[in-house]
Amino acid sequence: MNIVNVKDFDLRREVDYGTPEQNERAKQIVQDVKQEGDAALLRYTAELDRTQLEASQLRVTPEELQAAYARVEPSFVEAISAAAHNIRAFHNREKRNSWMDLQPDGSILGQIIRPLKRVGVYVPGGKAAYPSSVLMNVIPAQVAGVPEIVMVTPPATGGKDGIDPYILVAAAEAGVHEIYRVGGAQAIAALAYGTESIAPVDKICGPGNIYVALAKREVYGAVDIDSIAGPSEIVVLADEHADVAFVAADLLSQAEHDEMASAILVTPSQALADAVSAEVQRQLALLPRREIAAASIRDYGAIILVESLAEGISVVNRLAPEHLEIMVEEPMAYAGMIENAGAIFLGPYSSEPVGDYFAGPNHIIPTNGTARFSSPVDVDDFIKKSSMIYYSKEALMKNGATIMELARREGLEAHARAIEVRLQRVGEAGA
Amino acid sequence: MNIVNVKDFDLRREVDYGTPEQNERAKQIVQDVKQEGDAALLRYTAELDRTQLEASQLRVTPEELQAAYARVEPSFVEAISAAAHNIRAFHNREKRNSWMDLQPDGSILGQIIRPLKRVGVYVPGGKAAYPSSVLMNVIPAQVAGVPEIVMVTPPATGGKDGIDPYILVAAAEAGVHEIYRVGGAQAIAALAYGTESIAPVDKICGPGNIYVALAKREVYGAVDIDSIAGPSEIVVLADEHADVAFVAADLLSQAEHDEMASAILVTPSQALADAVSAEVQRQLALLPRREIAAASIRDYGAIILVESLAEGISVVNRLAPEHLEIMVEEPMAYAGMIENAGAIFLGPYSSEPVGDYFAGPNHIIPTNGTARFSSPVDVDDFIKKSSMIYYSKEALMKNGATIMELARREGLEAHARAIEVRLQRVGEAGA
Repeated sequence: MNIVNVKDFDLRREVDYGTPEQNERAKQIVQDVKQEGDAALLRYTAELDRTQLEASQLRVTPEELQAAYARVEPSFVEAISAAAHNIRAFHNREKRNSWMDLQPDGSILGQIIRPLKRVGVYVPGGKAAYPSSVLMNVIPAQVAGVPEIVMVTPPATGGKDGIDPYILVAAAEAGVHEIYRVGGAQAIAALAYGTESIAPVDKICGPGNIYVALAKREVYGAVDIDSIAGPSEIVVLADEHADVAFVAADLLSQAEHDEMASAILVTPSQALADAVSAEVQRQLALLPRREIAAASIRDYGAIILVESLAEGISVVNRLAPEHLEIMVEEPMAYAGMIENAGAIFLGPYSSEPVGDYFAGPNHIIPTNGTARFSSPVDVDDFIKKSSMIYYSKEALMKNGATIMELARREGLEAHARAIEVRLQRVGEAGA
Repeated sequence: MNIVNVKDFDLRREVDYGTPEQNERAKQIVQDVKQEGDAALLRYTAELDRTQLEASQLRVTPEELQAAYARVEPSFVEAISAAAHNIRAFHNREKRNSWMDLQPDGSILGQIIRPLKRVGVYVPGGKAAYPSSVLMNVIPAQVAGVPEIVMVTPPATGGKDGIDPYILVAAAEAGVHEIYRVGGAQAIAALAYGTESIAPVDKICGPGNIYVALAKREVYGAVDIDSIAGPSEIVVLADEHADVAFVAADLLSQAEHDEMASAILVTPSQALADAVSAEVQRQLALLPRREIAAASIRDYGAIILVESLAEGISVVNRLAPEHLEIMVEEPMAYAGMIENAGAIFLGPYSSEPVGDYFAGPNHIIPTNGTARFSSPVDVDDFIKKSSMIYYSKEALMKNGATIMELARREGLEAHARAIEVRLQRVGEAGA
């Protein structure tokens, strides 16, 4: 693993927005489904997913869901159910109530907080069809109180016959209300605009291939979308007290995701750097996905040597990583110094997979330096707020002149008159 | 004013993303400033804003800010300061703390909530240079705790000599830390990428012309941006108890904004519809901005007759208006039925300008039906969240096998081994 000086390193990468041909294709599919509904949806499913379906077959039935439970190990059901429980418990802490501020003049100001009404979750059909991602996308929406959570996924997962039963079980455990066997840009269009079989949603989440990403960009505005994730990243900040094997294993767990994943160690310890570099090679050779992990480590992996942990913190804040592990003697003392990181894992036992699968916080986290200004998926992503203003007669009498002065200063006379007509009316009534 | 049946009405409008030439131009300006810094910034300021500046003149000085106070009426300072006080009080209620959940097994899970570090607010230089918008963009950032709030605005406001002193006073009252006299796409590029004189920000907010909007889209990803607002809208839901003059005045206060603004009355009362239609014509004739308001009322205004207030509520929810006024006999009883509206004004004295200028809730509110899934600007727009996971040895021993099962089910062996290496180490220590 390369050991480099911090000055020679830049983590930021461009997001792939596809070729012009891919853009054109995604746009065409979206337009066709928007205009033709089910007919186009079924045509593209036949063409792109090689599956002939009738409209009546689009929706996964309760019987199929039950059958999926019979096709997976009971230990998997227990594991995914335990994970769902933890994720639900964590996200429950994020919930907020509508509130109001009662003023002594009789006015009431407030913020009404409501769930979105209908949310669509895309689950890809390739090898990245992860049950854990189903939980992470669906549970925050469920906790927010979204009454209609819709999942779409291609009719056959990763070349298998039908939808992966593990995905179906995860969907049921997470609390999905409707599942449709459609994928690609056509599924995104169906969620955004609706067809005869699928009612339109307010927001679309979940990862997908480039056509899915382009279709989401295309429908944005008609519906909300989540952010488009870049390759996954980990930064480990460690000192000489860190366990070499733990650090190496955690770097590799990120590297195995895909060739563009990034795994970086930041350390002031030359000894740790050397030892981790060797240990990564040793563990790497034993991994089933060693070709992917090796490419990731070669192209996007690095060990960055710094002068001190203080400089290390500053490097971390500039990198603004998706995942940060802090394995130093006093990890808690450093949490407060981290300004930019999507998720912070503290101490020797907080390995990233703990958070990927089980602990409770969301594993959908801002990538590519965007932790500077964005946040892991949470309940807030599935609510909307309305301001509420009940202004009393007394309040308007007291403040009307000030409001009119501000409106007239901006040249908006009709705004001032909307106040004035009320002050006059109250004056007449008083006279 | 047209009285139409609800079936014949569609509020949704396409957002203007500019001509290809405008897109090309905005892109070019952004690229030039990104690459050349101050040199390009000053060149475009000379060319587009016809103002020759040195780099050292970009920043507005404390002396200029003081001088601005001397150029405005003391009553304006009092009014804007009272408005700022109310807006601050309301937004203070939105603040949230970092929190943690201490588990009996020694683990700690939490959400760290922090302000963004540096935020840029664009203030346009044309006639829409509104002091109230300065407050509404800046105060939520200030309340969130953003330590560096930067304002940019063209070197001369609306053809005047220099920046409008009312804008400068509003900026000072709101708590802006730095002000630069630059505008247009070049100002957006400077905020996103930084120049020798202006440090880059994490998020850019505020309205502007089409070049500003296109530049914001262009830099999105490198920094966060706010949403791009469409024309302003009001829907008034009223019954026969509503004051005709109040309803007409409020519709017109929206219509005077611009020709594309939309003002709609929804009512089950034919008598109210007829009376408001006539009253709008009467009040319209007396307005200084009557040409703008007349065009808005003609092209985007309507009185929608419904069968009942219940149907009216359903129409409102489909329209998902930016501003909703409810002027019925029992307004409070209807608030809970509104699913989609950016801001809800209840009762006869809650005229929209009360919220535009003074009451406290933000006046930057989702337009064009997006209140279905988005929210008024608030403190949440200026914070970021990090998940925190401190997992104890006990927790890992207890849950490690479950985590490994989930990882292996997804084919991610290196994830499982990151757990396994720890379980082995603990086992060795125990043996």
